[in-house]
Amino acid sequence: MPALRFAGGSPEAREDTLAVEEPLELRLHGPDGPLTLAVLMRTPGHDRELLTGWLVSEGLLPAQRTLDPDPENANVWHLHTPEHARLALGARLGVSSSACGVCGSGSVERLAVRAGAPEWTGGALGPALVASLPGRLRGAQPGFGATGGLHAAGLFTPQGDLLAAFEDVGRHNATDKVVGWATLRGDLPLSGQVLAVSSRAGFEIVQKAVTAGVAVVVAVGAASSLAVDTAVTFGVTLCAFTREGRFTAYAAPERLAHAGK
Amino acid sequence: MPALRFAGGSPEAREDTLAVEEPLELRLHGPDGPLTLAVLMRTPGHDRELLTGWLVSEGLLPAQRTLDPDPENANVWHLHTPEHARLALGARLGVSSSACGVCGSGSVERLAVRAGAPEWTGGALGPALVASLPGRLRGAQPGFGATGGLHAAGLFTPQGDLLAAFEDVGRHNATDKVVGWATLRGDLPLSGQVLAVSSRAGFEIVQKAVTAGVAVVVAVGAASSLAVDTAVTFGVTLCAFTREGRFTAYAAPERLAHAGK
Repeated sequence: MPALRFAGGSPEAREDTLAVEEPLELRLHGPDGPLTLAVLMRTPGHDRELLTGWLVSEGLLPAQRTLDPDPENANVWHLHTPEHARLALGARLGVSSSACGVCGSGSVERLAVRAGAPEWTGGALGPALVASLPGRLRGAQPGFGATGGLHAAGLFTPQGDLLAAFEDVGRHNATDKVVGWATLRGDLPLSGQVLAVSSRAGFEIVQKAVTAGVAVVVAVGAASSLAVDTAVTFGVTLCAFTREGRFTAYAAPERLAHAGK
Repeated sequence: MPALRFAGGSPEAREDTLAVEEPLELRLHGPDGPLTLAVLMRTPGHDRELLTGWLVSEGLLPAQRTLDPDPENANVWHLHTPEHARLALGARLGVSSSACGVCGSGSVERLAVRAGAPEWTGGALGPALVASLPGRLRGAQPGFGATGGLHAAGLFTPQGDLLAAFEDVGRHNATDKVVGWATLRGDLPLSGQVLAVSSRAGFEIVQKAVTAGVAVVVAVGAASSLAVDTAVTFGVTLCAFTREGRFTAYAAPERLAHAGK
């Protein structure tokens, strides 16, 4: 895109590479015709992973399904499943949460209805390894280097090896792509892997981790109050402010070697 | 919240102040009973501004309305209006965008149906003043200093005086609070004021600016492709990467003194 850079003195005309943002619509096909399940503003690429991960996070992924791109519009995908009634209802309930009372603990309770505490099979995690994950994730972020405008999420082994990383203008999308990638490989629950995100950790990031069975989340940015409440409830190790070799653990620190010892 | 800080050596137990995140539900009351218009994950405080700004951004603010907090649940607000049928329909159309085709230009076209290009009455803006706005906004962010987990949005005069600033765990919410604050004062359209955000600028930030009549947007982070497309279409001056005295203008730079001169 053409741009003008102001840095003191005369502005410099140049071409900038920007993060691509486009809407993506997921259409559920049922007896009453198609229903829009979601419209996500996302960076194109890995749309199957994104939509699969989104369905997992919302508790809506059907066991039997076909999920296909529209032949004409690259921003539309079609979902056919015998479970269309459940999905249509679930999508509506996702919008209206009044049944359980609207409050932070209500949000945590609704999550508990459909997901339990993730197991952790990865052994003790060294703090130095945890602190190194954002740097390792950054190494897998070509888009961020080019645009400065993309969030990333990555899945790591307990030894710090990167299994998969995805970028997106939306931080929730990046995590959905990771979860969808693992789902399509049949890897859920992710009880032996660490999720790292280049962003802050709010409630929804921890919710996505819990539904995918992730027991350890490492965020570069801050954690919100509700993210910590959720992590405590589900026993998810939540590390935030992970920068320059340091981090802060807000929940389940017993998986970190030396914690409290 | 209790936390463990890892910074090499033994972890340090301490208490951290976190950004508060709680769900907020807006219920529309009509002949068929209440309908949930939105559930927003937000930082409590200035909920009237947030909901008013959200309604403006969605093109749903009713001229005649009562908007009141629930007497028992601080996370629920009630909207009564003679226009409930229009709002219920609008909320549904907001979810399903298939009518206009799902693509970036379709998103821009849908916005054009309900908003025109903002006017600018603020005169030429000096680049040094634009570059100074994030620092001025940071000065009005007590929550960020305490938690590191809050986004901010602020409204400035063309001389750089801060009119209002709000913080929230969600960057869209912070902008909605600014727009709602101005709406409640009867100040729309904001044709002589600059919106500054501590975050990246995606499509939705520019959409919110356009619906509020804001002609100049200054973002600390990157702009997305669709944000720039939208700013170009509506003639919104969009400045991004505004840090350390520098910034990049992606649309309508003619309002910046010296631009292209």
